[in-house]
Amino acid sequence: MIRDFAFTIAARDGEARCGAIATPRGAIRTPAFMPVGTAGTVKAMYPDDVRALGADVILANTYHLMLRPGAERIAALGGLHAFMKWPYPILTDSGGFQVMSLAKLRKLDERGVVFRSHLDGTRHELTPERAMEIQRLIGADIQMQLDECVRLPASDAEAERAMRLSLRWAMRSKAAFDVQPGRALFAIVQGGAVRSLRIESARELVAMDFSGYAIGGLAVGEPQGVMLDMIETIVPQLPYERPRYLMGVGTPDDLVECVGRGLDMFDCVMPTRAGRHGLVFTRSGRINLRNARHADDPRPIDEKSSCPAARDFSRAYWHHLTKAGEILAMMALTAVNLAYYQELMAGIREAIATGRFDDFRAAAKDGWKRGEAAGR
Amino acid sequence: MIRDFAFTIAARDGEARCGAIATPRGAIRTPAFMPVGTAGTVKAMYPDDVRALGADVILANTYHLMLRPGAERIAALGGLHAFMKWPYPILTDSGGFQVMSLAKLRKLDERGVVFRSHLDGTRHELTPERAMEIQRLIGADIQMQLDECVRLPASDAEAERAMRLSLRWAMRSKAAFDVQPGRALFAIVQGGAVRSLRIESARELVAMDFSGYAIGGLAVGEPQGVMLDMIETIVPQLPYERPRYLMGVGTPDDLVECVGRGLDMFDCVMPTRAGRHGLVFTRSGRINLRNARHADDPRPIDEKSSCPAARDFSRAYWHHLTKAGEILAMMALTAVNLAYYQELMAGIREAIATGRFDDFRAAAKDGWKRGEAAGR
Repeated sequence: MIRDFAFTIAARDGEARCGAIATPRGAIRTPAFMPVGTAGTVKAMYPDDVRALGADVILANTYHLMLRPGAERIAALGGLHAFMKWPYPILTDSGGFQVMSLAKLRKLDERGVVFRSHLDGTRHELTPERAMEIQRLIGADIQMQLDECVRLPASDAEAERAMRLSLRWAMRSKAAFDVQPGRALFAIVQGGAVRSLRIESARELVAMDFSGYAIGGLAVGEPQGVMLDMIETIVPQLPYERPRYLMGVGTPDDLVECVGRGLDMFDCVMPTRAGRHGLVFTRSGRINLRNARHADDPRPIDEKSSCPAARDFSRAYWHHLTKAGEILAMMALTAVNLAYYQELMAGIREAIATGRFDDFRAAAKDGWKRGEAAGR
Repeated sequence: MIRDFAFTIAARDGEARCGAIATPRGAIRTPAFMPVGTAGTVKAMYPDDVRALGADVILANTYHLMLRPGAERIAALGGLHAFMKWPYPILTDSGGFQVMSLAKLRKLDERGVVFRSHLDGTRHELTPERAMEIQRLIGADIQMQLDECVRLPASDAEAERAMRLSLRWAMRSKAAFDVQPGRALFAIVQGGAVRSLRIESARELVAMDFSGYAIGGLAVGEPQGVMLDMIETIVPQLPYERPRYLMGVGTPDDLVECVGRGLDMFDCVMPTRAGRHGLVFTRSGRINLRNARHADDPRPIDEKSSCPAARDFSRAYWHHLTKAGEILAMMALTAVNLAYYQELMAGIREAIATGRFDDFRAAAKDGWKRGEAAGR
């Protein structure tokens, strides 16, 4: 059994690279898309099916799990892998992002952040030390430092203050993480949309020596161009031989663009959330199955999908179930989207390995332009 | 391929009997429990999984399907079997019961019932002839006459009026059904809680010669004893060699009691609806997973279940997901309940075949008494 956390780059094509992260719970093929399992479940999916569709790793949310069912309870029940029957790698975020976006009555200072639960108003505190303790109790294979993520647009001064606080929290997170064999701690580059701050953040974090580096505070509403500009600014500051993780991204187009700029890991609620609302991503672009044009459409969503729901049922059926609010539509369209995201990542990895990444990206973009009318 | 609809009784044990209904779409082992697939989906279940858990036949609701997506649309898309990817037998109700319980502004007369949709207020008419046309368009293997189901308690005069109207509608339904190779039309015995009316209804329907006989208007809130009394009144009036179907029943206890009184087919939303709300049926009785006592409970729901969700996850996990309103809990607990209902029916059939039905019933009832504390 592999006992250490180790990243190997197998091939490079331009800035894009493919490889694998070895962990005691199995390999993570990179570039990797991580389905989001917020509250101990990838919504509307059995864990075996998430795996079968190609996921090597999922993300779980520290904020949600600490509030319900509670980190100590999860630990007592054998850790999150056993609790949710996902024996493969799990990455947890630090909780910081969702404290900022979901919790009530936040009070942030040097020590950490005190907030009230959005569920029941109970008071909680998240410090770098507690964030690491929770992630250890959960048993996450890849853990994230606590950071402060400011919303864009933010003033330069605000972005700088949060970035520097996040650097100090990175140091405390690293000390609290200590040594956990087979597990890794990633740092998070912050600094808003200010290049000099992003560069400083990356350099300082690299000097602290983490197992991987994430980019936070992007894909929070800014145009894709701003995001890509920040990525191009940050990536050269990061060590080549460590995984690079772009948090909370994105659309299929975001994924190919960011892989092309040297990123290795991604997570996003988009495929799962969109699926629950009748929107699917395919080789031919997005299809909104709520649209009345699909009411009588006998064609499958995508006859070449690896997902039976995309191949074996008509768009008319999914339109009907989506309009009726049926759970089966949420299940099936989530699976369709996760299947497509994983097919896309597999295609990306294969293209990088064979030196055809630019062609692959161009072909994927061409396909997406066809849109809902594809096949008519 | 079997081309005809045919019922064969393989064994009898007291009043209970086991056998099979042969149809061109496969055999229905009896006694049979039919999961309810209201709107073209057994809620929160893939059709393959409904099958894998042991269902030979499902029920679909004419009322829901005629309103959305529409019977003509389903026919144009190849019929309900193709639409929902359930190639096995389907029974449709006539729509009458749900017009009475769900529709708005009903106006009932000799011709039929005019009503407004609960979805969008549009006006619709259901006559015996239209009810049969819709079921034919849907492509149901077993179709039901249009009837009027009065709510209990009802006056004797009201029960009598509705019963006689249902008899006339039975005649018109039979004429409209005509001959459909491999498909069957069932009549529905009505008459409220009045024995003489139930006897008259049954005798008149038997004289018309249907392929099977259903009992309607029970399990609508009356005590189990009243229901069983009516069943004991009606069953002797029905031909031994035709299937007997008790509509809308019921709990596991109802099922064994009614099988013991000579009934062959059942449908009920109970296992699916209860599963979506965190209530599961097991060999050891009901378990309400929303109850706080399960928050730290590492035991599975039932380690001997045929359903992985009941065996491979803790009660604590399902408690957490149920409290969090997670779709996976609805999916998994629906599957747990359908698995148990089908295991129960398989056990019933086996017991009848081997002359041990009374022992089986007694053992099942003993098991249910253990309840939530079982295994502690």
